[in-house]
Amino acid sequence: MAPSLPQTYTTLTLRARPKGSIVPGETFATNTTNTTPSPSTLSANQILYQALYLSLDPAMRGWLNDTRSYIKPVQIGEVMRGASVGVVLASKSSKLQTGDLVLTQSAGWAEYAVLDESACESVPDTGEGKRRSAIDALSVLGLTGLTAYFGILRVGEVKKGDFVVVSGAAGATGSVVGQIAKIKGATVVGIAGTDEKCRWLTEELGFDKALNYKAKDFAKQFREVTKPKLIDVYFDNVGGEILDLALSRAAPHARFVMCGGISQYNEAVQKGPKNYLMVVSMRIRMQGFIVFDYLKEYGAAREELAGWVKEGKLKRGETIVPGGLKEAEKALVGLYEGHNTGKLLVEVSELEDKAKL
Amino acid sequence: MAPSLPQTYTTLTLRARPKGSIVPGETFATNTTNTTPSPSTLSANQILYQALYLSLDPAMRGWLNDTRSYIKPVQIGEVMRGASVGVVLASKSSKLQTGDLVLTQSAGWAEYAVLDESACESVPDTGEGKRRSAIDALSVLGLTGLTAYFGILRVGEVKKGDFVVVSGAAGATGSVVGQIAKIKGATVVGIAGTDEKCRWLTEELGFDKALNYKAKDFAKQFREVTKPKLIDVYFDNVGGEILDLALSRAAPHARFVMCGGISQYNEAVQKGPKNYLMVVSMRIRMQGFIVFDYLKEYGAAREELAGWVKEGKLKRGETIVPGGLKEAEKALVGLYEGHNTGKLLVEVSELEDKAKL
Repeated sequence: MAPSLPQTYTTLTLRARPKGSIVPGETFATNTTNTTPSPSTLSANQILYQALYLSLDPAMRGWLNDTRSYIKPVQIGEVMRGASVGVVLASKSSKLQTGDLVLTQSAGWAEYAVLDESACESVPDTGEGKRRSAIDALSVLGLTGLTAYFGILRVGEVKKGDFVVVSGAAGATGSVVGQIAKIKGATVVGIAGTDEKCRWLTEELGFDKALNYKAKDFAKQFREVTKPKLIDVYFDNVGGEILDLALSRAAPHARFVMCGGISQYNEAVQKGPKNYLMVVSMRIRMQGFIVFDYLKEYGAAREELAGWVKEGKLKRGETIVPGGLKEAEKALVGLYEGHNTGKLLVEVSELEDKAKL
Repeated sequence: MAPSLPQTYTTLTLRARPKGSIVPGETFATNTTNTTPSPSTLSANQILYQALYLSLDPAMRGWLNDTRSYIKPVQIGEVMRGASVGVVLASKSSKLQTGDLVLTQSAGWAEYAVLDESACESVPDTGEGKRRSAIDALSVLGLTGLTAYFGILRVGEVKKGDFVVVSGAAGATGSVVGQIAKIKGATVVGIAGTDEKCRWLTEELGFDKALNYKAKDFAKQFREVTKPKLIDVYFDNVGGEILDLALSRAAPHARFVMCGGISQYNEAVQKGPKNYLMVVSMRIRMQGFIVFDYLKEYGAAREELAGWVKEGKLKRGETIVPGGLKEAEKALVGLYEGHNTGKLLVEVSELEDKAKL
């Protein structure tokens, strides 16, 4: 029996490139499309897709700028780009069945989409139910977890005994980075924006220490926690003043893993690290990376990550915003304000409904 | 016969740490010492040394700051640190003879010094006379040449076909960097501060192109010269706006060799590169280094450098300030203002005089 589909569905498209911060109601346009994609109009190898969870990522702000980057900017009028996990409502693909969970980078901020099977990845069953599998596919076993994995292991070359500092530590990537560093035998300090996040890092995730960067004496605390042992590996998600502090406390030959700079994304004019000449005097290797560069190794990495999750060595955290796709814009603004702990997802529609299909 | 020595000699000591630029007459004190070191007071394994050429280096400004760095700051009241080449006036060392040329990091800004033989390196005879050997030992075959060598080859990993941009290209290090990159088959653009320096780079040293950063349309020229081919290797001696431009025109996986930041050394508050997030999106490896890290490989590197000089592939340039040690302070200020082309040296005393000894 064909699924019963609504008469209309929602997409969010880029309306205007923000100069600084994203402005809810201005940056994106909410569109109601009358013709729901229909199972009967599918071509060969296509599926009808309904989004369940949408991934919100710090990198999204960069995609809104019309500048040279690792990926094409989202164009004005285009559906906003984003990874999501959804369910196959109908299929003319021999590889995907109705009811399957799939991960895609191609649906973007849309409730429904017609997708080629080549644009979909299967979501592995992690043995804890469909909901958990869907979430994990976007977080710890998705690009987030892989970013953490390749960043701290390949770029940071973390090893036993290293002193590691992670900024944005309670975020999706940072929280995984710190735990992998612990698995490898490092001492790990996380930087986060609330005392509650700091407690989560130390009490739940096993970080050795966590500092709240909003504390008045944060700079002093930072200097103290990096004494006498200086920083061997700094994993940066944040930039700004914390990066400057980290530079000032870098050990000779430190590795600075440059993953992001969330403090700077919404600035019309970004601020560079004024202590950058420590790169010379301390012979720091400051290296950027993008997870896509490790595409061929995703499989092996996912397997190792999944193993750590099963063994209880790698704990997950996520903040799931309910209320459907229309919440995505506000939720994304909240990401830059530090509202989330762990991975930030928007629940586009509820999984339970899909079981009926 | 014992050499006839003057009754007094001059040293320059650090008087006050400069906040911004070095202030002639304030930063350093000129001291007249009454007791000239005497051949008769030498202990075993010591020599009496007279400086001939003093090396002036951009790094010197950093040594005057009381901050954590790769080397101890010069202390107030201490003779200013600096490499020099001089002549052995008297010797109680079995390794060094009167009349030998030696290179030392230990005499500093002093006309005469008593040195342990262990603080002296022999100056190899490059077959073009003593004067040339002395100069080469401080420039192309000294730490300057070695810095260029390890920086562009080991840190920059330059290879055939690379597109290389060098800032401070007419300076001591930059001029050698660009030539080594050419030897390795790269295309090389140099950035310098006068049209005359630019001509020297292209007409004498064989750079493919040189841009004057003081030209009004420099930024436009820079963008044009890095089109369509983006920068594979950027060798930075300068920092500031040129570094920002280079970041904006970096190819994916570019290597940024961080050797120095002469535009920032005299700033009370240094400016970081505002485009530093290109490090993430272009996966740039921004790596600092200090030549000392390659100590064990100096011998082999010097041999290769000397070979290139002999073959005419590596040309030398130097600016020699006459007038003795008292000129060192002003000459050092001039270094930060770009007065020199190639290596900057102060002639402390004339070599001819020494021949009599």
